[in-house]
This record gives sequence, structure tokens and C-alpha cells, in this order.
Amino acid sequence: MGKNLTSRADDYSKWYNELVVKADLAENSAVRGCMVIKPYGYAIWEKMQAELDRMFKETGHQNAYFPLFVPKSLFEAEEKNAEGFAKECAVVTHYRLQNDPDNPGKLRVDPEAKLEEELVVRPTSEAIIWNTYKGWIQSYRDLPILINQWANVVRWEMRTRLFLRTAEFLWQEGHTAHETRSEALAEAQLMNQVYAKFAENFMAIPVIQGVKTESERFAGAEETYCIEALMQDGKALQAGTSHFLGQNFAKAFDVKFTNNEGKLDYVWATSWGVSTRLVGALIMTHSDDKGLVLPPNLAPIQVVIVPIHKTDEQLKQIGEVAKDLMSQLRAKGISCKYDDRTTQRPGAKFAQYELQGVPLRIAIGPKDLENKTVELARRDTLSKENVFMDGLSSKIDNLLVEIQDSLFDKALEFRNTHITKVDTFEEFKEVLNIKTGFISAHWDGTAATEDKIKEITKATIRCVPLDQEKEAGKCVFTGNPSTGRVLFAKAY
Amino acid sequence: MGKNLTSRADDYSKWYNELVVKADLAENSAVRGCMVIKPYGYAIWEKMQAELDRMFKETGHQNAYFPLFVPKSLFEAEEKNAEGFAKECAVVTHYRLQNDPDNPGKLRVDPEAKLEEELVVRPTSEAIIWNTYKGWIQSYRDLPILINQWANVVRWEMRTRLFLRTAEFLWQEGHTAHETRSEALAEAQLMNQVYAKFAENFMAIPVIQGVKTESERFAGAEETYCIEALMQDGKALQAGTSHFLGQNFAKAFDVKFTNNEGKLDYVWATSWGVSTRLVGALIMTHSDDKGLVLPPNLAPIQVVIVPIHKTDEQLKQIGEVAKDLMSQLRAKGISCKYDDRTTQRPGAKFAQYELQGVPLRIAIGPKDLENKTVELARRDTLSKENVFMDGLSSKIDNLLVEIQDSLFDKALEFRNTHITKVDTFEEFKEVLNIKTGFISAHWDGTAATEDKIKEITKATIRCVPLDQEKEAGKCVFTGNPSTGRVLFAKAY
Repeated sequence: MGKNLTSRADDYSKWYNELVVKADLAENSAVRGCMVIKPYGYAIWEKMQAELDRMFKETGHQNAYFPLFVPKSLFEAEEKNAEGFAKECAVVTHYRLQNDPDNPGKLRVDPEAKLEEELVVRPTSEAIIWNTYKGWIQSYRDLPILINQWANVVRWEMRTRLFLRTAEFLWQEGHTAHETRSEALAEAQLMNQVYAKFAENFMAIPVIQGVKTESERFAGAEETYCIEALMQDGKALQAGTSHFLGQNFAKAFDVKFTNNEGKLDYVWATSWGVSTRLVGALIMTHSDDKGLVLPPNLAPIQVVIVPIHKTDEQLKQIGEVAKDLMSQLRAKGISCKYDDRTTQRPGAKFAQYELQGVPLRIAIGPKDLENKTVELARRDTLSKENVFMDGLSSKIDNLLVEIQDSLFDKALEFRNTHITKVDTFEEFKEVLNIKTGFISAHWDGTAATEDKIKEITKATIRCVPLDQEKEAGKCVFTGNPSTGRVLFAKAY
Repeated sequence: MGKNLTSRADDYSKWYNELVVKADLAENSAVRGCMVIKPYGYAIWEKMQAELDRMFKETGHQNAYFPLFVPKSLFEAEEKNAEGFAKECAVVTHYRLQNDPDNPGKLRVDPEAKLEEELVVRPTSEAIIWNTYKGWIQSYRDLPILINQWANVVRWEMRTRLFLRTAEFLWQEGHTAHETRSEALAEAQLMNQVYAKFAENFMAIPVIQGVKTESERFAGAEETYCIEALMQDGKALQAGTSHFLGQNFAKAFDVKFTNNEGKLDYVWATSWGVSTRLVGALIMTHSDDKGLVLPPNLAPIQVVIVPIHKTDEQLKQIGEVAKDLMSQLRAKGISCKYDDRTTQRPGAKFAQYELQGVPLRIAIGPKDLENKTVELARRDTLSKENVFMDGLSSKIDNLLVEIQDSLFDKALEFRNTHITKVDTFEEFKEVLNIKTGFISAHWDGTAATEDKIKEITKATIRCVPLDQEKEAGKCVFTGNPSTGRVLFAKAY
């Protein structure tokens, strides 16, 4: 199966699109820009959800659920936010269909069932949530509110790609309310750190934490924190954002509270989210020309066992050994599968699990039964070894950790060698086009320069890194003074 | 807090509406008919989800995700299904807003951004899913497909009530595809049993399994299995349904497969779902005039510990004891909370946890420290006892099981005493209005009779019980012959 996959070198974009479909992760649907997430792809998302949900709860957040629809009058209340999303809103205008008198058996929108006020399908939920918080907050005793929502959102994007950019996507959105500016800022920073930790420890994706420039900021935010990752083709991908919203939404929805000195003030806000886009990032960070490579912490199946047999008796004996091994692995919390389908040959099974990125594959044949061994193959390195059955579950347990670490190290090495300091615009363009990756360069701090660079090179400022060193320099484009380097890249 | 709650005897409906809001489960939103599920209410739903998801996976199902929108042409393909839902569909007609030239700062729908084909917000997903399955199924080797989806759906209901009937609700919908009629029928029956087991073992709600009559069947189904529960006011509530869809959707979407004899045939289907409506059923089965009563298996907090202190030193000592007890409880998998807020008095805390239905409350005061005791209060019986700290966590573990069983027994007793056999229509009306509950009566099997009875009494046939005894009799309304009794009731 991997044989039919376009290679990354030939066409990275085609490789990605083919891999998503061939590995059974997702496919396009009959609805423009909306995807079907297939069971194997959804299982990866479920693993992400479980871990993120645990991290959110550990940091004091609770889940809740708010309506899918936002009445237009609420949607437009926070003007910058509304302006930012207005151009990509799906709008519900009617609430009923009726038989089409001109086409028997067909339906049409019932013109009598027009809504008095149109409903926007949420592209994000600040508006509906802050309109709700207004009823929940009177005093500082009602604060903080630390809520997260798992939901679908819709943004009518014109150019879509499976997982990376779809009209409907699944995400979580945290929405918190605080007494003070500093508390809200600390929350926005904390959640960005949670995202960074998740990306690095679970997805094995090294990320750079930073803040967005004004032009790249979330519509309605005062500061947008982000984690930026680098894909194998040298393009950056924004993997998560956490916004300090100031008092913008509190002012738009008139949400005030009495502080502990009896004074009225507007509430301070944050919001933060990651989406099914992360599945795209996962694929593009680790996978190879043979298919997916999944980090063990997010692999739906961590170990697959394939029997190699000629006779039914052999299959029965291998089955017993496999069953015993599986119960040992499961006792260690390792997810495993025994594939004893007789409709497929071992070679086809090997190719399938390679394509689907199962971290470890075990093959057991008649010789192995005699020698008390198995063949153990690693997906990431494609290496194989014969190992003794004795102590195998512990070996596997350690190996899964080793693979997880090794994938991270490999991605980190790639990322680190793809951050290039440049001081001239010629060099900027050359690195961008030939070496690719992040470019660390001085910038004069103006949106005008940022726009011009984008126009000429398609590169944007991915972030001002949180660990930016103060360093006097000259803007790579205008030569005007700068106080530190920022990271540019072409991005997904 | 419970004091302000309308009593069930005074106005059951008002009691329910107040309780949902006062116990912090949910509230109405700015969007007509859509609710906000608050963290405490959502935590109950999460517990339901976790258990159902486990049961689905145990029976071989996998999760996936399909688009929120259904193009009108797909929606209308299965005519009965389309007809059943057409009158309550939210319809997306446009994909962009723009600045309103007549109202600065306001937005309006961009008339240029009209969709060529309208999109229906899914009221259920058979259409979009069967259109997708068409691409997945060629041969019997591709079957069965056993998929579940956790999602939001929208049905534009005119009269809504929190949890029980809302325009948008959360649910799961299983959609399976099979080679044979009998396999699909067995699946529909199996999932109805899964629902019954979940309702009885987790929600402590006894249910009657049955099939719907043709008029009450799901639009597009050949047979609808259901679980029917009885609320405290004597009205029935349909808690879950599982549909045998025959080949209706396969025919509408032209989904054929080659069987193992090489012949082409249409695929057989089922679908099955439960929703956030279950939270309403949970409330109305167990709660009382003081507030919620939650079965331990679904209570977000199973045990709450409240300190009773005068001095800070006492609070500190109680805190240590509580911490120790909590770690013992957590080791047994019991969820607990220590409420040491100093902004609330113990009495207020007691009232809050009573209202919120926490199964067990522990109070620890200075005397308890001396005597190595605690005060242990049961929410279901409102009984209190002083018990020794020694062995407390085991006692609690047993008590939670006892409470779970006792809630089920109480609900079963109520349900069983509210199934009344009647043989005349006078008696039928009298029982329905005075005693209430299920009425077991003979019916002539015609939709016309069913309709007339509904018109006169508002009672509908809830189901033909699966364990129906064959018994010759005369229809309670027409006197025409009948072969067995069915269950009538007024219903939510």
C-alpha cells in the first residue's frame, strides 16, 4: 500500500492528501469543505481529547456546553471579533422545509418559515458565552469562571484541506473570566504552556511558544499566545492559541462585577483552543514515504501481532502465545491487537500497519514457537530484531518510551537546524526558498513592513518568541531599528 | 435553597423547571429553544457518555464523525425520513455576512453569498452517513460497519423544556451496516438491550423494552425498539430507541454489496440513539422536594465532606482528617470533595449539596475529632448517623452500592404499581386521569383506533412490550379482536 503513496520529495502536499485517505483517517464529504473523520482518525483525536481533558481538569477547568447558534445581534456586539469572522459565517435563515409544489417528492425551504433574526453557526463562541456569563457574574465571589467546551465550529473557508483547514472542525474552546488583568494574563499564559506540554510530551512535536503580532492576533484579543511547530517541508503550523481578551467582551456584553472593595469593574477574559488540525500536524511531523508514523502516546494501536502460519494447528498454537502476550501487555496499559484474519496474507497486513503507523509489530511463526522468540519491528526506524519471548512485555514497555522520545528528538533536531538567523533580505528570500523553515530576523515592529514582506515572500511572522533575547538590530526589510529577532516562516 | 423549590405535589412541571435551574444543571439561552448545559449538568452527561461509550466499544463499535450539514438533495433522498423531519429543520442558506450599509456597526446577510444548494443542519445523520457508506461498501468483506457518533443535532421544536425537548441537543447516534436482515435485526435488538442495561444499572431507572407501533416509529424505520421509563408524575418517557431500518437507506442511496456467493444485494441498516434527554429522565425519576437525588453511579461528586469548626486550629485538624479520608476514598475510585470555603456557613453548604443531590455527606466537628467519629448523611433517605472513622471508607463503598440499589428498587416499585390492566374505556380514562402510569390494554392493531384514543385522552401507545403475553381479548376502544395487551400512557 505504501508503494502507491507519492513520496514526500516528489510532492509533499500530494503525499499528505493521499496519506490521510489511504491510512483511513478521513475523507472529503458531500458537503463542500467538510470532512468525514473515519474511525482510525477519530481514535487519534479521542486520545488527544482524553489527555487534554485531563490536563484541563488538573488545572481547575470544568466542561460545559453552549448553543451552536449565535443570534446575529449578539454576534456583532464585539465589533473586531465580528469583523474578523463575518466573511466566513454559515447563516441559518429558515426553520422549516416543505414539499416543493413544482417538484413532486422534493423539498424546498418554506418561505413562511423565515427567522426574525438570522442565526450564525458559531465560528467561535465568545459572543454566546459572554452573553451567558453576564447572568452568572455579579460579585468577585462568582469569579474566576474556568470553563471549557468540546464542540464543532464552522468557518466557511474557501480553500480547504483534510484536518488542516476544513469548513467544519472539532475543537475545544476554553473561556475564562477573572477579577484582574494579571490573573487573566496568567491564565492565558498557563494554557499556552499546557498546549506546549501536550504537543511535546504526547504528540512528540517540539513547539516554540510566542506571541502573535497585531496583524496575526485573534480578532478581539489584546494578546495572542501561540505554539508554533515546524512541518517536514519547512512550513510552520500554528498548533494552538491562547488569547488574553482584556475587557473587550465584558464591555461588549456589559459584564461587570463588584470587587471585594465594593467597586464595580468589567470582568477580564481569556479564551484558548486547539482543534482537529492537530491531527494534520501529527501526520506532517513524523510520517514517512511508507505511511503514518504515530508516537506511541497517541497511537490507537501500539502493538500489533501478526501470525505467520501454514496450518490451522500452527495458527492455534500462535494464537495461544499471542493471547498470553496480549494479557501481559494490557496489564501494563499497552493497547494491542491480534490480527488473525485469514482473508489477508501476512505481507498485506505488514503493509497495512506500516501505512497506519502502528509503532511496534510482532510477527510469530512456527520457528518462533520452537525457539521461544518473536520478530519485533519498529515502525519509526523500520528496524527488525528477533527477541526472546521471555521478558518481552517489559522490553516493549521500554521500547514504546524510547520510540516516543526518539520521535521527539528527531523532530527537535530537524526544527533546530531549520531556524536560520538572517540579516539581509536577499538572504531572507534565499533561505525561505531553498533551506525553508523558520527565519530569525529583525523587524521594525510595523504592520506595514510585515504586510510587504508577506506580499513579496508569502512568509508571515509566526511569533515573537517568549524567550526572545533583547538585541539591538536593524529591520531585515527597512533597515529601521529593532530590539529583537522575530520568527518568520511560510505557514499552513 | 430547597425551601424555595415548588413541591412536586403543587406543580410537578414547575418543580422540574425550577430544580434544573436551581441545582445549576442548565438554563435557557439567548437562542430560542437552545439550552446552556452548566458544568454540574454537563458532568452528569460526561459520566453517562463515559459508560455508554465503554458499552458501545465492548460490543464492537468505533466512533467517527460526519458533517453537521446535510445538502438538501441528500436530505430528501429517503422520502419518509425527510417527511418526518422536514417541518423542524434549521436551514443554512448563506455563507457570509457583510457590513449593513443602512446600520453602521451592524452586519447583515450578504445577498451575494447565497448557497447554490441549501444545507440542512442535521436533525439526525442517516442521510449524510449512508451517502458516505456508499463509498465504503463494495463487498461482504466490508461488512459489518459498526459506527457510533457523539454529536449535536437540531430539531426546531416549538415547545421546548430544558433537557427534555430542546431545539439543539447532544446525543450519540449509532449507524450500522450489515449483510443480512437477521444480523441487522439482532444488532437493533442488542443495542436496545445495551440501553436497558445502562438505564437500569447506571441511571437506576427501570425500563420496559418494547417495539413502537407504526405511527410512533422513527421516520424511515421498519421497526423501532425502545426503552420506556415512568416518571414520578405518572407520565412515560421514551429513554432510548434503536431502529431496524431494513434496506430503506441502502435503496435511497444505492448502497449495494456483493455477497459471498457473488450476488449483488442492498445493505441492511440500523440506527440507535440516546440524548441529553436522559438527564431529564434521571431528575424526574429520583429527585424530591428538597432537590436532586442522584444515583451514585452517575453523581459527579459521590461524597462531600463539610468541616464544622469555630477556630482556625480546628479547621486545620479537620482538614488533615478529611485529607486522609479522601485519599482512602479515591483509592477505591470514589469521587469526593472537601468543601472548606469560609465564605459559606455549614448550613448553607448542607442545603446546597442536598439540592444538588450528592449521595453522601460527611460532617466533621471538634467532637468528632475527639471521638474519632463523623456524621454521615444519606441524600436519598435523608437519614443521619454517627459512625466511627475506623473502616469508614469501606462502609461508604458499600453504602454507595446500597443507595444505587435502593433507588432502583424504589423506582421499580413505583413503576410496577403503576401498570394497570384495564378492560373498558371508562376505566381507561379513569386510571389515566386519577392513578396515572402505564395502562395495559387490548388494542385492535389499527392506527385509526390509536389516533382516536390519543385525541380523546392524550395517551399514546408507548410500546408493545417484548415480553407481551399472547392473550386473546377485545380492543378497549372498538371491541374488535386483539391478540395481546399493549402499554398506553401520557408521555413526555
